[in-house]
Amino acid sequence: MVKTVAIVGAGVSGLASIKSCLEEGLEPTCFEKSDDLGGLWRFTEHIEDGKPSLYKSVVSNACKEMSAFSDFPYPEDFPNYLPNAKIFEYLKLYAQHFDLVKHIQFKTAVVSIKKHLDFSTTGQWNVITESNRKQESSVFDAVMVCTGYLSEPFLPLETFPGIKRFKGSYFHSRFYKHPHIFQGKRVLVVGMGNSGVDIAVEASHMAEKVMISTSRGAWAMSRVFDNGYPWDMVFLTRFMALVRNSLPGPIVGWMIANRMSQWFDHANYGLIPEDRRVLREPVLNDDLPSHIITGKITIRPKVQQFRENSVIFQNSSEEEPIDIVVFATGYTFSFPFLEESLLKVENRQASLYKYIFNPHLKNPTLAIIGLIKPFCAVMPVVELQGRWVTRVFKGLCQLPPVSTMMQEINEKKQNKIHWFGVTFDEVLKTECLEYVDSIASFIGAKPNVLALFFRDPKLALKIFFGPCTNYHYRLTGPGKWDGAKNAILTQWDRTLKPTRTRVIEDSSTFCPYLLKIFGLFALFAAIFLGFQ
Amino acid sequence: MVKTVAIVGAGVSGLASIKSCLEEGLEPTCFEKSDDLGGLWRFTEHIEDGKPSLYKSVVSNACKEMSAFSDFPYPEDFPNYLPNAKIFEYLKLYAQHFDLVKHIQFKTAVVSIKKHLDFSTTGQWNVITESNRKQESSVFDAVMVCTGYLSEPFLPLETFPGIKRFKGSYFHSRFYKHPHIFQGKRVLVVGMGNSGVDIAVEASHMAEKVMISTSRGAWAMSRVFDNGYPWDMVFLTRFMALVRNSLPGPIVGWMIANRMSQWFDHANYGLIPEDRRVLREPVLNDDLPSHIITGKITIRPKVQQFRENSVIFQNSSEEEPIDIVVFATGYTFSFPFLEESLLKVENRQASLYKYIFNPHLKNPTLAIIGLIKPFCAVMPVVELQGRWVTRVFKGLCQLPPVSTMMQEINEKKQNKIHWFGVTFDEVLKTECLEYVDSIASFIGAKPNVLALFFRDPKLALKIFFGPCTNYHYRLTGPGKWDGAKNAILTQWDRTLKPTRTRVIEDSSTFCPYLLKIFGLFALFAAIFLGFQ
Repeated sequence: MVKTVAIVGAGVSGLASIKSCLEEGLEPTCFEKSDDLGGLWRFTEHIEDGKPSLYKSVVSNACKEMSAFSDFPYPEDFPNYLPNAKIFEYLKLYAQHFDLVKHIQFKTAVVSIKKHLDFSTTGQWNVITESNRKQESSVFDAVMVCTGYLSEPFLPLETFPGIKRFKGSYFHSRFYKHPHIFQGKRVLVVGMGNSGVDIAVEASHMAEKVMISTSRGAWAMSRVFDNGYPWDMVFLTRFMALVRNSLPGPIVGWMIANRMSQWFDHANYGLIPEDRRVLREPVLNDDLPSHIITGKITIRPKVQQFRENSVIFQNSSEEEPIDIVVFATGYTFSFPFLEESLLKVENRQASLYKYIFNPHLKNPTLAIIGLIKPFCAVMPVVELQGRWVTRVFKGLCQLPPVSTMMQEINEKKQNKIHWFGVTFDEVLKTECLEYVDSIASFIGAKPNVLALFFRDPKLALKIFFGPCTNYHYRLTGPGKWDGAKNAILTQWDRTLKPTRTRVIEDSSTFCPYLLKIFGLFALFAAIFLGFQ
Repeated sequence: MVKTVAIVGAGVSGLASIKSCLEEGLEPTCFEKSDDLGGLWRFTEHIEDGKPSLYKSVVSNACKEMSAFSDFPYPEDFPNYLPNAKIFEYLKLYAQHFDLVKHIQFKTAVVSIKKHLDFSTTGQWNVITESNRKQESSVFDAVMVCTGYLSEPFLPLETFPGIKRFKGSYFHSRFYKHPHIFQGKRVLVVGMGNSGVDIAVEASHMAEKVMISTSRGAWAMSRVFDNGYPWDMVFLTRFMALVRNSLPGPIVGWMIANRMSQWFDHANYGLIPEDRRVLREPVLNDDLPSHIITGKITIRPKVQQFRENSVIFQNSSEEEPIDIVVFATGYTFSFPFLEESLLKVENRQASLYKYIFNPHLKNPTLAIIGLIKPFCAVMPVVELQGRWVTRVFKGLCQLPPVSTMMQEINEKKQNKIHWFGVTFDEVLKTECLEYVDSIASFIGAKPNVLALFFRDPKLALKIFFGPCTNYHYRLTGPGKWDGAKNAILTQWDRTLKPTRTRVIEDSSTFCPYLLKIFGLFALFAAIFLGFQ
């Protein structure tokens, strides 16, 4: 019977894991290498080895209602998309509210995690930690690894011919902090994920010239979505997910391409994805098209080769002078404190059931939390992972047989190659709602919309057509929260609160519908008469 | 008979005026106070008295095809919306191409312009200029005043209670150059015209907090318009103008409100205009909604009063601490070198026929060029003004009787109060296409779309449905340019050239139409089956 749980890392996943352990009556001990919680979201000027590193201006890609923990909405006056300092503030509030900090041992690194001698019967682990240069060994009933995948830069320099003779400076996006380094420079950003585009936009306020090189292109979308609503509150609904999952792939691809082009024609802006049938994760950036149309950023194809002070792009013989190259080429990951047999990472892929469990391990007492890149906020995902994992630890939920798990893992891989293509760290990407719902159903926390419709139709409709906020998973099952219904009914109030900061009484006195009809008539008359 | 023309100022209006004089065989002498041409568009770190002042980051609000002079398209690799340095470069190219510079006397200020003793018979003017501290007097047959309206800040401090006890710093937007002054500060921008919003956005990259105070609100729109096309190439077409001018005002107002809300709901973002039926000039800014939704900028109502270190807004008792106030309250104008009888400015209004001629002057040999705020680029407008004015000077075009001119002026004023409300410098605002067409028709340069349709239907359709570029006015009439037709047919090529910098062959192999039909069926089936 599992009682003590070692948790590695006190970032978002770590905090959610501590909370889940407490909910299930387990005894968590969280080891955090640095002197504070927050992980990725704690900005530091100094880049710490093995820790994720933020640039100063990072703003969340998921809005506050979609990225709240399921029983702890953000304060209503927080902005919708959160500067990193505000997320950090929220994590502190969360830890304080649920009294999580006392379970964290700061400045304590995990050196190794090995099977205990009795592992085959007890599932226990020997965990060696280091603090103040002193090592300590303890035995835990289970382990949750919450170290993420944003600490090890992926920079395949050998794929960039001539980079060695390039005399300017170059660095991986991980080492970027502030834009002043670009003052007056000619900058090339290689790669157009979210960081690459963010950095290019910021550089363009200072630099003489900014180019982004991308071979694959990308769909770009803005946080400011239909009618100005947060993109994820419109896009990530059960209804929309049903539509996306029910239709054949090419149709969904065409629908998405169509929707993306409403903002701007991606071919005209040089961004069009290389293969339009492949559904890549869109780049979320509000400024990209306006920076392209004003000439602040130019999109270029793949780099063919670097020269001493310039670059040559594919299908071009022209040399473009550059001073600085930023490689926004993503991350890879590893778990140096785990034996390879426990978690094998090959080709930046780890074969884990539901991204969590090594199916070959006899006892499911080792869980990897947050090794996933959902196209949504990470909070709902890691929280549900934690809630499920702790119930697996306790034996309240069972894993399927090894063969079933392996089959699913292999199918997922195939699917992913089909949909996303396997490059860089895209293997971690997955459809958000489908995944979260599947985990929620394991613990009985998935809302049954049809049943709910007969009991509480208003709430059911909000759940089906409204944004799929994390509160959905506290309506029922273990960890049910009485505030969940109210949190769902008031999610739009909290969304509008920080932006409706100047309210005017509606002064329009005319009836739009009558006007619309009359307007149409008048319009036809005008066109008929007007070609003069 | 007019031969010699004095031109005051060598900015956009001045250059267009020199060119118009040369086209009509007149002898222009342009007096420019500074040591270079370009006027507003020549950025200087130093703010010169009586000269417009730019902030470093200004980007044009009109795209390059809409703001090109009618016989001189921008180089095709220039970006669509131009950083001020690029416009300056273009003006230099223009001056060079048409050999305008030799007609400019730099470092020469115009001190006074007075009627010559023989004015009533000759229409001549005594022009006193000063250069190197030496004054010189000359006689000219006509005068074109091209000094604009962006040199005198309008800052009615008495309307801001408590500003005198405010201990932070405050200044008019004219004195803004670079954002570093906002580093770590709490900033309030008063007024939300284009400058106000630009400055707020830029400040938000540096400041601790940025608020914009607006009593009237505004519609905001982006340069990146439908499908990413430049807003003015979509919005400013003869077809669209016909629709706008044919429909009753409230319907047009409703259509515009509807269109503006597609980007974002202005009420939810605190921007909704106070009176939705009043058609105010929209604020053109690509970043405003994303900066509001990420909490970088907060919109607030009118200032009620300033305190020592804070501000209180209307309908609120809360004090907001602030460090810096930027008054983006617009400009006023005056003509100190003209006697008041020549041009009376009252309530920031000058009663001029077509914004150019004082109707009470016996001889129409004094023209004010560019004292107008069209909702489009200024180049097409001032160029046509110059082309008409020089023909009026030469007696080839006649002004109507004084009573007719006065009637039109008064009607315009009434109309403007109805449509725009008369506040600040809005009295200069006018519907662009209607005005330009009316001036063009005076000189026979307005294209006759119907006649053209039978001769050259392709061109006629482009002229009617396509962007109303300035080349339209060089197809016919005096100053006809042989390159005009080609410039119109290639305007989209020049638009796409600087942004289609990465081209991918279309790899999609499926047929969108079949997919669309099948998709609809599948969608209905999914909804029918899916509410589970």
